[in-house]
Amino acid sequence: MKDRIREILGWYESDNAGSKANLYRLLAHGRLAGTGKLVILPVDQGFEHGPGRSFAPNPPAYHPHYHFELALEAGCNAYAAPLGFLEAGASEFAGRIPLILKLNNHDVLHDEKDPVPSVTGGVQDALRLGCCAIGYTIYPGSAGCKTMYEQLREIAQEAKRNGLAVVVWSYPRGSGLSKEGETAIDVVAYAAQIAAQLGAHIIKVKLPSAHVEQSAAKKVYEAEHVPLKTAEERVRHVVQSAFNGRRIVIFSGGAKEEDKKIFDEVRAIRDGGGFGSIIGRNSFQRKKPEALKFLETVMKIYSGELQ
Amino acid sequence: MKDRIREILGWYESDNAGSKANLYRLLAHGRLAGTGKLVILPVDQGFEHGPGRSFAPNPPAYHPHYHFELALEAGCNAYAAPLGFLEAGASEFAGRIPLILKLNNHDVLHDEKDPVPSVTGGVQDALRLGCCAIGYTIYPGSAGCKTMYEQLREIAQEAKRNGLAVVVWSYPRGSGLSKEGETAIDVVAYAAQIAAQLGAHIIKVKLPSAHVEQSAAKKVYEAEHVPLKTAEERVRHVVQSAFNGRRIVIFSGGAKEEDKKIFDEVRAIRDGGGFGSIIGRNSFQRKKPEALKFLETVMKIYSGELQ
Amino acid sequence: MKDRIREILGWYESDNAGSKANLYRLLAHGRLAGTGKLVILPVDQGFEHGPGRSFAPNPPAYHPHYHFELALEAGCNAYAAPLGFLEAGASEFAGRIPLILKLNNHDVLHDEKDPVPSVTGGVQDALRLGCCAIGYTIYPGSAGCKTMYEQLREIAQEAKRNGLAVVVWSYPRGSGLSKEGETAIDVVAYAAQIAAQLGAHIIKVKLPSAHVEQSAAKKVYEAEHVPLKTAEERVRHVVQSAFNGRRIVIFSGGAKEEDKKIFDEVRAIRDGGGFGSIIGRNSFQRKKPEALKFLETVMKIYSGELQ
Amino acid sequence: MKDRIREILGWYESDNAGSKANLYRLLAHGRLAGTGKLVILPVDQGFEHGPGRSFAPNPPAYHPHYHFELALEAGCNAYAAPLGFLEAGASEFAGRIPLILKLNNHDVLHDEKDPVPSVTGGVQDALRLGCCAIGYTIYPGSAGCKTMYEQLREIAQEAKRNGLAVVVWSYPRGSGLSKEGETAIDVVAYAAQIAAQLGAHIIKVKLPSAHVEQSAAKKVYEAEHVPLKTAEERVRHVVQSAFNGRRIVIFSGGAKEEDKKIFDEVRAIRDGGGFGSIIGRNSFQRKKPEALKFLETVMKIYSGELQ
Amino acid sequence: MKDRIREILGWYESDNAGSKANLYRLLAHGRLAGTGKLVILPVDQGFEHGPGRSFAPNPPAYHPHYHFELALEAGCNAYAAPLGFLEAGASEFAGRIPLILKLNNHDVLHDEKDPVPSVTGGVQDALRLGCCAIGYTIYPGSAGCKTMYEQLREIAQEAKRNGLAVVVWSYPRGSGLSKEGETAIDVVAYAAQIAAQLGAHIIKVKLPSAHVEQSAAKKVYEAEHVPLKTAEERVRHVVQSAFNGRRIVIFSGGAKEEDKKIFDEVRAIRDGGGFGSIIGRNSFQRKKPEALKFLETVMKIYSGELQ
Repeated sequence: MKDRIREILGWYESDNAGSKANLYRLLAHGRLAGTGKLVILPVDQGFEHGPGRSFAPNPPAYHPHYHFELALEAGCNAYAAPLGFLEAGASEFAGRIPLILKLNNHDVLHDEKDPVPSVTGGVQDALRLGCCAIGYTIYPGSAGCKTMYEQLREIAQEAKRNGLAVVVWSYPRGSGLSKEGETAIDVVAYAAQIAAQLGAHIIKVKLPSAHVEQSAAKKVYEAEHVPLKTAEERVRHVVQSAFNGRRIVIFSGGAKEEDKKIFDEVRAIRDGGGFGSIIGRNSFQRKKPEALKFLETVMKIYSGELQ
Repeated sequence: MKDRIREILGWYESDNAGSKANLYRLLAHGRLAGTGKLVILPVDQGFEHGPGRSFAPNPPAYHPHYHFELALEAGCNAYAAPLGFLEAGASEFAGRIPLILKLNNHDVLHDEKDPVPSVTGGVQDALRLGCCAIGYTIYPGSAGCKTMYEQLREIAQEAKRNGLAVVVWSYPRGSGLSKEGETAIDVVAYAAQIAAQLGAHIIKVKLPSAHVEQSAAKKVYEAEHVPLKTAEERVRHVVQSAFNGRRIVIFSGGAKEEDKKIFDEVRAIRDGGGFGSIIGRNSFQRKKPEALKFLETVMKIYSGELQ
Repeated sequence: MKDRIREILGWYESDNAGSKANLYRLLAHGRLAGTGKLVILPVDQGFEHGPGRSFAPNPPAYHPHYHFELALEAGCNAYAAPLGFLEAGASEFAGRIPLILKLNNHDVLHDEKDPVPSVTGGVQDALRLGCCAIGYTIYPGSAGCKTMYEQLREIAQEAKRNGLAVVVWSYPRGSGLSKEGETAIDVVAYAAQIAAQLGAHIIKVKLPSAHVEQSAAKKVYEAEHVPLKTAEERVRHVVQSAFNGRRIVIFSGGAKEEDKKIFDEVRAIRDGGGFGSIIGRNSFQRKKPEALKFLETVMKIYSGELQ
Repeated sequence: MKDRIREILGWYESDNAGSKANLYRLLAHGRLAGTGKLVILPVDQGFEHGPGRSFAPNPPAYHPHYHFELALEAGCNAYAAPLGFLEAGASEFAGRIPLILKLNNHDVLHDEKDPVPSVTGGVQDALRLGCCAIGYTIYPGSAGCKTMYEQLREIAQEAKRNGLAVVVWSYPRGSGLSKEGETAIDVVAYAAQIAAQLGAHIIKVKLPSAHVEQSAAKKVYEAEHVPLKTAEERVRHVVQSAFNGRRIVIFSGGAKEEDKKIFDEVRAIRDGGGFGSIIGRNSFQRKKPEALKFLETVMKIYSGELQ
Repeated sequence: MKDRIREILGWYESDNAGSKANLYRLLAHGRLAGTGKLVILPVDQGFEHGPGRSFAPNPPAYHPHYHFELALEAGCNAYAAPLGFLEAGASEFAGRIPLILKLNNHDVLHDEKDPVPSVTGGVQDALRLGCCAIGYTIYPGSAGCKTMYEQLREIAQEAKRNGLAVVVWSYPRGSGLSKEGETAIDVVAYAAQIAAQLGAHIIKVKLPSAHVEQSAAKKVYEAEHVPLKTAEERVRHVVQSAFNGRRIVIFSGGAKEEDKKIFDEVRAIRDGGGFGSIIGRNSFQRKKPEALKFLETVMKIYSGELQ
């Protein structure tokens, strides 16, 4: 099992031992330790969508410690959140669960076609809070992408110099894209490539649809007979687009949905060579026992204990 | 009584002893010392609304020493004001009343739909003036919110590194919101959550109305039967939205009103689990003896001496 | 007489001895030394309006030494000008007349509804030129006010740290105001308050008219029966608005006018508790003997030698 | 009582409101609050003399929390210690007792005739730990005095700029002095003067003997009939030597001694116009109940409750 | 009278207007204002010799305000002292008397053949305290002279950049000189030259004796028949040695002596072209009325009112 981690770390050959050690911590924690697979609990919805929408379905989730406990008990590889949520528990849970500090966030009280999230934390905060990684969101396709790419460059550089890992949420949106295009297979693959080229260690994208947004991409896909019909094929294309699988790509769960649908997606991610899931609303918006059972199933699919 | 302060300080687990000591000073001063409740006197209206509108109803209030004296005599936990007003009395009253330096301010000679207040002081000013905390205003819902969030992040980081407490005025306004939406319960709860995620120690919001601004929030509130009919219930939801009550949330008094109405609001804040009030115009726009009597009643409601 | 200066210095309790010493120098120089009154000669019109408009009516005024000599011979408390004019005479007249370096200036070759003056000098220039104070102009009511307020904050902080005094020209203008509103009593009082809150030691405003610009202010003025009919009453309200008279407020003379009108204004300033005048065009646009006679009369009114 | 504090703060006229507020905190805490007298608990002996010598007589004193509790329960004005001891309790006791961070320390594992203590903490540490003051030791008479004076100058400047108070331990020793000379009245008075000239707010010296070390001083004392026979007279001369009593001078208790002797010294300090004591070994080397009784007596002598 | 000041300022042609303005302030204050002569009150003896030796002969002099008052009432041109003494009065006396902050000081508790005084203040302190000049002591002839010369260079550069004047105490001592040599005419003249070459605006030396220390100098003096027999002749040679009289050279009074002797010295300084005296012990070690009478006589000799 450890061999798989060493193999993965080998892909990050220009990184210093510090960043590698922090990637190791992420890969060696929890139920999936050593499998090369990751299930991460992200809780930024209080900021991104508002507290009522996020936590009213399961009120214990208003409490910042709840998410540390959920991630720990479920055996997640890491817990990711904005500054305030981590500050409110990082001391209490120090060392017990790998943490990812999300450094930029956006709220919907003022929304725009081409938003640029606000920087709400820094590398120095991640270090003092004992985090393994920083997280940063880019919106490829947005008029503000330049701001985000350049900010990410600065932040990633500082994070890596200080031995942290860099996780990039790469979510296409903005005036350059149709609504359907945000999850189009060509666009998601492109977003994964951009994040990889910007130096991300771990890339988080949405599970792509079969839609192809760009005619230029469509032409090539057709000419080259790139198989994109099934979710598994599309995952394979996205992973391929992230340096032929030499960058960790994980997929987001999205809004609360039926379990069966999610388990099928997880199987597609696994079978397409994806590295895991980042599952927020589908876990913390349930009662905890249910959430634990749900996450256990997800992890068993990734580990192969379940088909 | 001291036990309540220690309990509250326990919530701020990632903060250094300096910020905790300054939170202690705020919680251990005045008539409500040790109760975990706060009544703060804020006087920024000279800048925000103009001197005549603010002080003509009670001309002694033009004098900068007046407010130090009022806060002291009434037994408020602290006095908050912009640079000029604090510079004009901080030496004379050194050490006698906890001070909060409001670091950004906005005037109405030039107003806009989406204003960004001007930075009018800094953390170094707060240290040289002997303040316990800095104050900063954000307008969630404004097109300028990114500027404010990022400025707050920088200022809060510097303040905390130097052992100060951070008080955030979180006032929704701007093109993202209807006028009614500025005090809508979902919006105020969201504003409290944003301030908490940005790292505020103390959050100041307006008392919310029963209006719900965002349809996505409305749907969840209804589905989950979140009780929001009474002021007390709404206070409870806002406090819950600030890390399940693990951040100090206080409520602003607003424009001069009838006493009975305010006392009822104070009862709702107390019974809903709120931590206190920040009362400017309703205190300094009366003759001092009346103001003292008024504030005494407010504090007695908070302390439970009055029902 | 010295007692009045000490009383005034006592208002600046948070300032270091250096800033106090420089305020002392301004108050202890010239014909009005020790009275607590100030008449300052400002000559920035060459930059602000152009040289022909400014100096052709009295050609010797093209010469930079002329203004040092005029201020000295007339017994003004200080001479204020932009970088170039001070550099052209500061050595020759070193120590003989307190100097104020105006740090921002605006010209009318390119004008706008909401201008932001250019920073044309710095605190270090003021120190090397032997100035007692720096001057800075803000335009409350302008869309650019945020830039000016924040620049002033930085400059004032540096000036005070180095023991200089800070003089703020607070001139309402811009898209937030009607033309009449620029000198409206409520607006001028507001402008004085803003300058005081931003940390000005000396505030320069225009003599206000009886017009009230803001309806919210009008309502309060009427409800509280604030007397604003005479110039004297309006001066009193402006002075009150600058921390109840605990900041030095002086009034600008404006364009060249009939002597009688100006002397009446000076009487109103004196009787309303104002601290003096800053008189440019009405002094340097006359032949020197006339100017000296004119300024002598102004000073005699301030000193009480003339009713 | 508050009037005495305000009188004392008035002596520090060049200090900012921050340093004044922290002096206020020291003077307004504990059993002697408001009397203008101070009893401070210092515990640097673990570093200066070694742990066994210091704490074996009362083993609970090995625990860092013990000293916070002792200072609190006894009603001391403050607790002073090096970095490690404060870090080990500053969060737990945040805000409950004024703290003084001793910024330089010396151990006896390597001792010299002319030692220079090591800098073991900084102003930034004092801020993050919530201290009211920094402490620094100088050894006038030492060949290394220049190093210490210059270090103190830098540290005091930074501390004052950040609103902290500065406490100087001024202990004559080194090759310039005989052993007897270290507590000679002329030398102790000189040491107090040097600390005051270096900008100390609070000066700590040893209780002087009647010995006069310097012949030049002896000549003047005799010529001017300076009364130096009793401890009270010598205290008076030391206090006079610290700007005629306009700097707070406190006296150290030294090694463990008979209670009666110490109480007599306290009476002499009080009657000679001294401002209090800093008592380490005589308090923490006893069982706590005894220490509390002992300190109560000391404080009652200072407050005048006991003759 | 003003013409003499302008003539003197003309010698400092490379200095900025700020330094000139501060030299002007020194030359234009007090009883000798405008004469080009200076009598300065220096009080650093508390630090340099100890408080008892310095102030016991006239106990009111222990009080820091005493010296401000003495300098003011006597009409001295300036008051010079170390940091502590100036901090203790600079606000109270702001602007009323030119101040010189002595930036290095030496005490005699540890003395050496070749001492290097400690830096006890900085240019930034001088600015915040409202000083006109900084003072710095060098010991030509000492093994530590390089340290002092180089420190002076840095400090003088910073002082001049900020518009302050630079006063250098140039006191030969150290292993390079015999005791007699410290006041030898060749050595004092040499010390004046060194200070001038290091950029001093004002040079303070001791009144030289007729002794010639260096054989090389002796040879030239004899060959060139340089007249050095009378004090007046020696003053003339020292003044000549400071750029042919184009730098201000003043002479120190030394220990308390008979009035007649001092008055004769003052006459010699005046008649030899010296610029004045810096008189500490002979003024503040007398009762104030006597001191005032004594200083009046000194000033009358300088002004020519007395022969």
